[in-house]
Amino acid sequence: MVAKPSRYALASEGGEPVVATRDEAEELLFVPPLNFAMVDAGLYRSGFPESANFGFLRTLRLRSVLCLCPEPYPEANLEFLRENDIRLFQFGIENRKEPFANIPEDTIREALKVVLDVRNRPLLIHCKRGKHRTGCVVGCLRKLQRWCLTSIFDEYRRFAAAKARISDQRFIERFDVASMKRQSAGSFSN
Amino acid sequence: MVAKPSRYALASEGGEPVVATRDEAEELLFVPPLNFAMVDAGLYRSGFPESANFGFLRTLRLRSVLCLCPEPYPEANLEFLRENDIRLFQFGIENRKEPFANIPEDTIREALKVVLDVRNRPLLIHCKRGKHRTGCVVGCLRKLQRWCLTSIFDEYRRFAAAKARISDQRFIERFDVASMKRQSAGSFSN
Repeated sequence: MVAKPSRYALASEGGEPVVATRDEAEELLFVPPLNFAMVDAGLYRSGFPESANFGFLRTLRLRSVLCLCPEPYPEANLEFLRENDIRLFQFGIENRKEPFANIPEDTIREALKVVLDVRNRPLLIHCKRGKHRTGCVVGCLRKLQRWCLTSIFDEYRRFAAAKARISDQRFIERFDVASMKRQSAGSFSN
Repeated sequence: MVAKPSRYALASEGGEPVVATRDEAEELLFVPPLNFAMVDAGLYRSGFPESANFGFLRTLRLRSVLCLCPEPYPEANLEFLRENDIRLFQFGIENRKEPFANIPEDTIREALKVVLDVRNRPLLIHCKRGKHRTGCVVGCLRKLQRWCLTSIFDEYRRFAAAKARISDQRFIERFDVASMKRQSAGSFSN
């Protein structure tokens, strides 16, 4: 947290101020985004960040955000990215419910390339709820890291819970990792 | 993975060999322990590791394991720790079900000191199922990282799921962080 107090004030736009000045900040609590978790070194996942989450996200010192929603990125979020020199990658995937779900493999593949490139980290992957689209990208990453499917699905379901989709799990199972270059795919890097 | 092939053979004790030799290992899948996840930089959580998980655990290059079960640590696990120069910290807490649950605050506090000491990382925290005892330690860590309770409980319940305990959540809520030295408590470190 090296930003000047004047910058912190911007975090209050559209919600309660999370971080005000450095002194006050010592008393305030952080609000991670919905379904937030660490995936790997410098790699995080979550639902859509709101302004209430910006104070917390600053502590991650993100270099990039990867958004999997097709809608235009909200102005408040763009402002947050600009202020913190965070690059936005957007790979829009429609959130279609079963039985019409059709996960575009090419888009997931492009997203994964960004995820695997350590120059983009610290990186936050997010969609709307951090369950399905994010779950598919993380699931494919775990395949690259050679996790067994049981563990991959266990992790997927931990976030999707009652909303877990068979189509997502089938997509992950069928995803062809051999065709992807194994950039930094050797499991966790400390 | 710097160990010699001769070492890998030991991973087969008491289960399927996960990692045999370096060449063969390229074809095999990793089996993370039950409820495995990354908590912070160099900090992991899980259920009790079995021999099937040793191949995966090697990729984490652990320096320490923190076990929250009171039972003697299994010989196969001790062997794994010895082979990989991993230090064991054991803070035994009985797994008593509600309404008799009584979480010993002093033990959680001692465990947290080990967790906060970055010299012990990469560190794996585990109990039996990675839900209650591990969930309490991680929940208290999140308090030190100044997460709001809503996010702390959301994370706790993600792992405990149908087994979530009100007593654990109340323990986390009441846990006094002010009395603990704030060693590296400034949220995530990249």
